[in-house]
Amino acid sequence: MIKNDFFYDTQVSKKEKDELFKKIKDEYLKKEIGYYHLLERDTEEIKRYKKSLDWVKRIIVVGIGGSSLGTRAIHQLLFLSKRNNKKISFLESVGPNAIKAVLSKIDFEESLFLIISKSGGTIETISNFKYIIEKYSVDFDDHEDREHFCIITDKDSKLDKFAKRYDLKRFYLPDEVGGRFSVFSEVGLVPLAILGYKIDKFLQGAMVLREKFFEHKYDKLLEKAIFLSRNRKKFPINVLFSYSSTFKAFNEWYVQLWGESLGKIDEDGKRVGLTPVGLVGSVDQHSFLQLLTQGAIDKTVTFIKVNDFKNNIKIPNISLPFLEDTDYTNGHSFNELINSQCDATMESVIKNGISVDIIEIDDFSEKSIGYLIFYFELLTSLTAKAMNIDAYDQPGVEEGKKILKSKFKI
Amino acid sequence: MIKNDFFYDTQVSKKEKDELFKKIKDEYLKKEIGYYHLLERDTEEIKRYKKSLDWVKRIIVVGIGGSSLGTRAIHQLLFLSKRNNKKISFLESVGPNAIKAVLSKIDFEESLFLIISKSGGTIETISNFKYIIEKYSVDFDDHEDREHFCIITDKDSKLDKFAKRYDLKRFYLPDEVGGRFSVFSEVGLVPLAILGYKIDKFLQGAMVLREKFFEHKYDKLLEKAIFLSRNRKKFPINVLFSYSSTFKAFNEWYVQLWGESLGKIDEDGKRVGLTPVGLVGSVDQHSFLQLLTQGAIDKTVTFIKVNDFKNNIKIPNISLPFLEDTDYTNGHSFNELINSQCDATMESVIKNGISVDIIEIDDFSEKSIGYLIFYFELLTSLTAKAMNIDAYDQPGVEEGKKILKSKFKI
Repeated sequence: MIKNDFFYDTQVSKKEKDELFKKIKDEYLKKEIGYYHLLERDTEEIKRYKKSLDWVKRIIVVGIGGSSLGTRAIHQLLFLSKRNNKKISFLESVGPNAIKAVLSKIDFEESLFLIISKSGGTIETISNFKYIIEKYSVDFDDHEDREHFCIITDKDSKLDKFAKRYDLKRFYLPDEVGGRFSVFSEVGLVPLAILGYKIDKFLQGAMVLREKFFEHKYDKLLEKAIFLSRNRKKFPINVLFSYSSTFKAFNEWYVQLWGESLGKIDEDGKRVGLTPVGLVGSVDQHSFLQLLTQGAIDKTVTFIKVNDFKNNIKIPNISLPFLEDTDYTNGHSFNELINSQCDATMESVIKNGISVDIIEIDDFSEKSIGYLIFYFELLTSLTAKAMNIDAYDQPGVEEGKKILKSKFKI
Repeated sequence: MIKNDFFYDTQVSKKEKDELFKKIKDEYLKKEIGYYHLLERDTEEIKRYKKSLDWVKRIIVVGIGGSSLGTRAIHQLLFLSKRNNKKISFLESVGPNAIKAVLSKIDFEESLFLIISKSGGTIETISNFKYIIEKYSVDFDDHEDREHFCIITDKDSKLDKFAKRYDLKRFYLPDEVGGRFSVFSEVGLVPLAILGYKIDKFLQGAMVLREKFFEHKYDKLLEKAIFLSRNRKKFPINVLFSYSSTFKAFNEWYVQLWGESLGKIDEDGKRVGLTPVGLVGSVDQHSFLQLLTQGAIDKTVTFIKVNDFKNNIKIPNISLPFLEDTDYTNGHSFNELINSQCDATMESVIKNGISVDIIEIDDFSEKSIGYLIFYFELLTSLTAKAMNIDAYDQPGVEEGKKILKSKFKI
């Protein structure tokens, strides 16, 4: 389903790997971190809810950060295998122009709004929620209006209490699941199921990797985490170079996961951090490749390549006068061209002395993508453990929230 | 129109600034670098062409890197002030799924394809061009079919020769204008004019800064360039944190400009480079802010804030039961909320010891955006000069192109 090859010697010993494996297995078995244990969910309620939504033509995810990024990533990767005609929009930030652009497409009567906030008090999400209430003159005492909303939040959050008060449809995040690790929870599964994706296959894909790792170890992940941690001063930047522009949102999901989990104060009180950069091929060969091949050697690069796009469109056998130089791709599939570009770029980056690895995925299927998502979640946990930091908190963002409040309280 | 404030002491002397100013003024006066001199263009032919296109409902930019990023950036920033109903699509990469998604929207009869390639032989662009020719059974001997194409390239490139052969509409890039510095040339002006943007205002905005800088110096730009160059080992990462999600494409444009211009082998044969990262607020407060406030201090951050979105939608005065905690934004505009978020985040990042500056723009107008674009072009040229590297070439991408060709030639 997925293959991962390294093109450098990590110089990691068996002992180091064993130690890290022990630490992460302890964390896994303790069950204090929730995301490992999302995969054997009972998805019946989600599926029942989905079946009741024949009237829905568009869902609008009102949420930000971990509440929207995962869903957006997976939808963008899988959209060609969507099994119904429902559309999706995202209302994330509070930029007035983006709000206007998103809501201009919406017909309330055919729309379902998913209000998603783990804490239940995210200021962007609740402000946008209020704007929707006013714009569409929503009356929560009216049964028909209530049908247009579904709330996903932590149990007993203030948003949960509000939703209970009006008997709105509710789903909860399981215990101890952080926002950026929540895509296998109701946060991702509810919207993805409504759009017609096979959520059980998605969970299964992740489970394949979890079992492989925790039962038999999966050396590569341990090795990579230790290498990245050990070389964090030499290579403070980790580039993900994904070959298909449909990976754009996935890259954003990766940036959140990596940046917010690994930028921390460590056990010795030192500020440490690995900076994620997401690129898509071949577009960013025309943008960032020069920096990789001739700029300072301060990066590692992970390429992602999809072997079979299941889309066989070809470059036609047309020779245009004066442009015969470009005929070398004639008759080949675009799939082949983009993957050859990935290989060529990779070779050139390796030649220029950069530590490179590649992740090859079979196809764009729920199962492969579930595996890929869990690969990065697990790698993040492992790298944090190797760096002696807590992957799951984000104390550094609280100060800004306090300053924001103080600006409005006169 | 634009204000730039620093929240750190650059410790740059007058002498250093004078030296750098002299170097850049020499480059400017020599006229060997074309982009400085694009601003006093005669745009009459572009406007005449635009007027002949009443029949066009959608333009498709077929181009990659510098041929598409600038147009995409400006369109995304200004779309609310678009003055006609024409739509735009971009065919950039050769990912088969993205090609399918873009072309599914297109009705050939109402479409104008802009084939843009400076060199005239970009493999992605020509491959996509051939696909379009086949898909829509284009016959270049037919006058009506020819009307659907416009070619923008260097004079006498192979693509120009092809276009001449069939008498296709052509525009040329002026001499010595690199792709990533080409948005003020026909590459940007033709599509932007067709969409109804005021291209003269856009050029004027850039000219305001050019005159200010070259006539009276504009100390801040010199200071910033020297600071970034001098601290390139300490702060190898330069973050652009733009407060409006409509800056997404602008950030991508910045990443290309900065990364490809400043990742180079310097005069002493050493690999140097500054790594650009583009973020949008408030979304990336939920993704990258933790890394900025508590991760390693290896970054500078430039915030961009737009003072007046000219869009006065407000957070309604609604108090939801149990959610009264969020009422502090009630009655305020979303414009105020997003800008307060920018201020709060900035304060928190400064408190945590990061070198921060802010660029404040009056509004989303052609003039302000022209100024902003030229600001970053000029800053790039200055920083390269301060680092003793050539901002305008990209030798590091040639190798990958050769390897690619070799993969197809069996």
